[in-house]
Parts: sequence; structure tokens; C-alpha cells
Amino acid sequence: MELTIFSDEHFMREALKEAKRAFDADEVPVGAVVVVNNTVIARAHNLTERLNDVTAHAEMQAITSACNFLNGKYLNECTLYVTLEPCVMCAGALAWAQTARIVYGASDTKRGYNLIGNKILHPRTSVKHGVLAEECAQLVKTFFQQKR
Amino acid sequence: MELTIFSDEHFMREALKEAKRAFDADEVPVGAVVVVNNTVIARAHNLTERLNDVTAHAEMQAITSACNFLNGKYLNECTLYVTLEPCVMCAGALAWAQTARIVYGASDTKRGYNLIGNKILHPRTSVKHGVLAEECAQLVKTFFQQKR
Repeated sequence: MELTIFSDEHFMREALKEAKRAFDADEVPVGAVVVVNNTVIARAHNLTERLNDVTAHAEMQAITSACNFLNGKYLNECTLYVTLEPCVMCAGALAWAQTARIVYGASDTKRGYNLIGNKILHPRTSVKHGVLAEECAQLVKTFFQQKR
Repeated sequence: MELTIFSDEHFMREALKEAKRAFDADEVPVGAVVVVNNTVIARAHNLTERLNDVTAHAEMQAITSACNFLNGKYLNECTLYVTLEPCVMCAGALAWAQTARIVYGASDTKRGYNLIGNKILHPRTSVKHGVLAEECAQLVKTFFQQKR
């Protein structure tokens, strides 16, 4: 049996599916998945409106869900895929979790953690961005256009 | 009937009670309460070990609990009391919640949000620190001394 090694684009499409679920639920459309050994172990989307809770970002829920799956506090063998650049809160959480790798789609020039500086992340975390960026950004753009 | 207006020390003592609960549960002893109109509406302590979840800081849970109580996403009329200076994650969450006021006890020179700069908080958030600082710090110190 051949083992398919999935690409970053493949997993970002999974995160995008989650973002679309958020969109359909009238939430800011951001989605995330956590991957270890080529396998998705957690998926989540933004639920701040439904839960009335600003901490319910996709990443926060994906971290909690992944740690629950792994029965451990650290994601030091995991990649978190998220459609939008994490905010400071989520970057702080990803640091505590010692996340091995973060892949994000679109940049967030208003609220992204890079505005504060990348010292927030754990020193062993590697970051890749721009994967399916157009598609990730367009979803957010369409969402806010419809709100106006 | 006379209305007693409680002091910051009073509410920090409530946060300290929560921190002691964390201590007794073998968690890093940090506690928090959220206050509005002179009344505690949420109390929480660190649960990262029990929940195996790095996002389970006292402040994060206090925010979620307070928002649940208020049935709204914003703490813009609330004061959050916490025994230890918030980390970057928690400061980011307090910013999203537009927290009116933050009072913390001991400074955290290794993980406190001030290491990154106070740009993280919401521009309308006021901050006071040093309330019962000695007592708040001693609890954390004793905890880590026992761990060695």
C-alpha cells in the first residue's frame, strides 16, 4: 500500500472547509486544523458569536481539541494550519503549546501577531505563510462586505 | 442600608483564594476574579494540568465565565483581578474583550505581557499592579520551591 504524503495545500483546504463552516454560521470565517504524522487530529472554526466568547478563536479551540486527543499539553510534533494569521492571543497560546510548526494562509495586517513582533512564538516553532492566501483572504473579505 | 464599596485589596484577596485552590490542586497558583458594580461575577484558577490544556489559564477561564454571565462578548464595564501579571495570550484575550480595567498582583518578569510591550491591551484598558504583590508572588515561589 502506498502512503500518500499530503501537501500543505491539502491541509489548508481542510482548514478552509472549517472557515466555510464559520462563514455559513455567520461567524468571522477562520478555520484551523492540527496535523500530526500526516493526519488531522483536530479541526475547529471561529465560534466567538455563538459562544459570546472572544477566546473562541479557531486556533484556541483547535489547540484544546488536539491536546485532548493527545492527552498532553504540548503540540511539539504537530503542525497547526489556519486560514488567517493568528492574533496575539492565539500566538501566545501556540507558544505555550510549543507548537512545532504553524502554516497560515492570509496575513492579517490589522490584528496579526507579526504587528507585535515574532518574539511571541516559541523559539522552536517554524512558520510558513501564504498557502492558499488568496482564497483564505477572499472568504474574510466577502464576509465583511456582506456585513456592510 | 449602607453600601460597602470594596477596595482593590478586597477583590485581590478573592483572586488569592482562587490561587490557593490552584495551589492545593497542584496547579501553578494563579487566580482571577471579574468584578462589575462592586460584585464578583466570575472566579477561576489555573487548570492547565488537570485539563492538559495550556489555554486554561485563570484569566481565560474568568473571561469565558464572565461573558457567559453577562451574555455578551465584552468586559468593558468590568475589572479583572489576577494574582500574577497576565501572559501574552491572556493579555490578547483581555484586549479582545475590551476589558475596562485590569488589576494584577505580582509582576511576571519571565512571561508577563509587559516584556512584549503594553501595546497588546485595548487602548481604553486601565491597569494597576502591585496589589498584595508580596503575597501573590510568595504563593508562586513556594509552589516552585516544592517542585524542586
